[in-house]
Amino acid sequence: MTETPMAMAAGAVSRDRLWDSLMTMATFGALPKGGVNRLALSAEDIAARGQMRRWAAAHGFADRTDEIGNLFVRRDGTEPGAAPVLTGSHLDTQPKGGKFDGAYGVLAGLEALIAIHEADIETRRPLEVVAWMNEEGSRFRPGVMGSAVFAGKMALADALATADGDGVTVAAALDEVKSANGDSAVLSPAGFPVAAYVEAHIEQGPVLEAERKTIGVVTGIQGIKWFDVQVTGREDHAGTTPLSARKDALKAAVAMIASLEMELGDPDDRLRFTVGRFDTLPGSPSTVPGAVLFTIDLRHPDAATLNRMADLIEPVCRSNRRGCAVTVTQTMDAAPTDFGPPVVDAVRRAAAALEIPAMELPSGAGHDAMNLNGLCPTGMIFIPCEGGVSHNEAENATPEDCAAGAGVLAATLVDLTSR
Amino acid sequence: MTETPMAMAAGAVSRDRLWDSLMTMATFGALPKGGVNRLALSAEDIAARGQMRRWAAAHGFADRTDEIGNLFVRRDGTEPGAAPVLTGSHLDTQPKGGKFDGAYGVLAGLEALIAIHEADIETRRPLEVVAWMNEEGSRFRPGVMGSAVFAGKMALADALATADGDGVTVAAALDEVKSANGDSAVLSPAGFPVAAYVEAHIEQGPVLEAERKTIGVVTGIQGIKWFDVQVTGREDHAGTTPLSARKDALKAAVAMIASLEMELGDPDDRLRFTVGRFDTLPGSPSTVPGAVLFTIDLRHPDAATLNRMADLIEPVCRSNRRGCAVTVTQTMDAAPTDFGPPVVDAVRRAAAALEIPAMELPSGAGHDAMNLNGLCPTGMIFIPCEGGVSHNEAENATPEDCAAGAGVLAATLVDLTSR
Repeated sequence: MTETPMAMAAGAVSRDRLWDSLMTMATFGALPKGGVNRLALSAEDIAARGQMRRWAAAHGFADRTDEIGNLFVRRDGTEPGAAPVLTGSHLDTQPKGGKFDGAYGVLAGLEALIAIHEADIETRRPLEVVAWMNEEGSRFRPGVMGSAVFAGKMALADALATADGDGVTVAAALDEVKSANGDSAVLSPAGFPVAAYVEAHIEQGPVLEAERKTIGVVTGIQGIKWFDVQVTGREDHAGTTPLSARKDALKAAVAMIASLEMELGDPDDRLRFTVGRFDTLPGSPSTVPGAVLFTIDLRHPDAATLNRMADLIEPVCRSNRRGCAVTVTQTMDAAPTDFGPPVVDAVRRAAAALEIPAMELPSGAGHDAMNLNGLCPTGMIFIPCEGGVSHNEAENATPEDCAAGAGVLAATLVDLTSR
Repeated sequence: MTETPMAMAAGAVSRDRLWDSLMTMATFGALPKGGVNRLALSAEDIAARGQMRRWAAAHGFADRTDEIGNLFVRRDGTEPGAAPVLTGSHLDTQPKGGKFDGAYGVLAGLEALIAIHEADIETRRPLEVVAWMNEEGSRFRPGVMGSAVFAGKMALADALATADGDGVTVAAALDEVKSANGDSAVLSPAGFPVAAYVEAHIEQGPVLEAERKTIGVVTGIQGIKWFDVQVTGREDHAGTTPLSARKDALKAAVAMIASLEMELGDPDDRLRFTVGRFDTLPGSPSTVPGAVLFTIDLRHPDAATLNRMADLIEPVCRSNRRGCAVTVTQTMDAAPTDFGPPVVDAVRRAAAALEIPAMELPSGAGHDAMNLNGLCPTGMIFIPCEGGVSHNEAENATPEDCAAGAGVLAATLVDLTSR
């Protein structure tokens, strides 16, 4: 390819520097089996933020922390008042998380800014890298909290008042961040105009690996619906009660799940249908179960398909209840996020220009990008992770794929700042 | 019918006296919801034994307690050295048991002795009523302990050394019984020749009620096999992992159970196939289950059928494992007990002579009669219980059915002592 600014930016990405920064970041909260425990606003998270700020300063980038704890690193553009193009993800992890979930998007963003800087590329818009506060929701519920406040979807006061399991509020934990920041102790207002947002992330699923693609052009985030299915039968003696006289909650639940599996069949394998919890009462080998509660986690990128599938659940459960009572209660309903063309096209163009094997796919997991979508043109870049494993200490990705994703990100940022 | 001794004995059974004794016995360990908590050799059980001894004394019957705590009440026969015909059951209950399970068999036996006595019937053999120690196994494991020691199937020393959850041994608890007994503090040796054993019991199942029969002529006790099925898959993110890439332990377990249900089909509805326990790991709605452990309780009165059904379990589980690992472990194996003609025929004859609606059926639950079988001709008499409910505070039976069962028992005892 010709040496366009996009190619120059991508070419300046350093595989080793990015990998070193990922491995250094993983030391903050490192666990024995290679994973990371870095809960939002914990001592480990504050130390990680300090490292991020030192890296930014080393390249002459300013940083600031907003009033909900989102950390921004900025490279100025040529047009001072222009809204920035934003990239990033989060630095907090699951209690037994991996080295890449979240951290990759922040550090790929930083690497992209450094590469653009070292390639001497002037951009019209400023570029900012963000580490969103509390994406995981492991310490403070709910997750994607920093981006929700940023996008005006959650009130600042509500977020600040949220307490962890020990009663420590977000506000109190943020005081620790202010103390650690020292000279930049004044927190900037949460929320400002953004020209576009693009987030890099490991896929957290096996599709890219299976399809041998390096880049996932993320088209959106699939919708998700949760249901509790409560099946109530009657406890009976397992030895004395004929099968025909039972109201066996477990066998009814098994029939419901087996039937749902057939009814919810999807030849394209895009539907995600999971029964993750299955509680049996009384749970004694010699007693016919009198009650079963099971959960259904249903996801699909297409709203109409998701709704159609969800509408099948209650009738299918009802027709398999075998004399038991059944109640189906919806406990979560998040419509699919469709990122739309501007950023999705930019990512696709960048991967094509850099001749990196790419494919379109929806995100199976939720991300901060959900909150940015609607506020500004939004998109995501996925890279493969080993075996699709995530939320697990064994989470892994290759230095080459990490660098390829940062290259596509750098090229995409250059593209987006010019628009 | 002509006034045979059998008819005279049955005719002397008092519905009200039997019902009063059942209700009085239920006050020892009474629970708020109408049930009974009377664990083996507990203060409540010792008080219940005292009541039993007072009733015996009031009718001139001697009592003795053997060295494992089985309580015997005796009415002498005309032939001093003859082995007695034995009837009875147990006075201990489940922690939340009912008024009838066990107590009915002991008190129907006592009522039969009183009726035979009041009808001035002389029997060749002595008649004895027994309350076996620790049938339920709720305090000391295993259950049917007193009858097992009596029958030589468990060593006395092993039983005496068995401790409850608080570390109290059977031997220590028996010292309390000795103190309470006072003048009869010497314990008699466990085990002696018995001419025949017949045990009355509530059915603990719904068959007699459904068939509108008052008496169950119990042909045997069905065999029982227990299995643990461990299914091991892989935990995955419910949102990101395509169904085709999963090793979903729950869906494999569901397929196994659904397939077993078809393969173990029994048009006669005699097979009991129960999955009572089903544990899912990690049990999070958004995580594909990585492991499921479920139990199978399989019972049938015919040994060959039970073995044939049991042999299907492992191959059916294996063929539905869907990429998961599966191990099937047998954890219990009790062959069916077939009581054989002598007592079964006597019970059938007695019910017919008394013109009480009766039917043959196997026992679904285990009883002390299992241990007596082989030692002497053995059989059981069932009466209906409301809704088949047992091991439950709501356990119930009618005064009329209780009296009918005691009448058949009295007639059967008279028949058996003459043989």
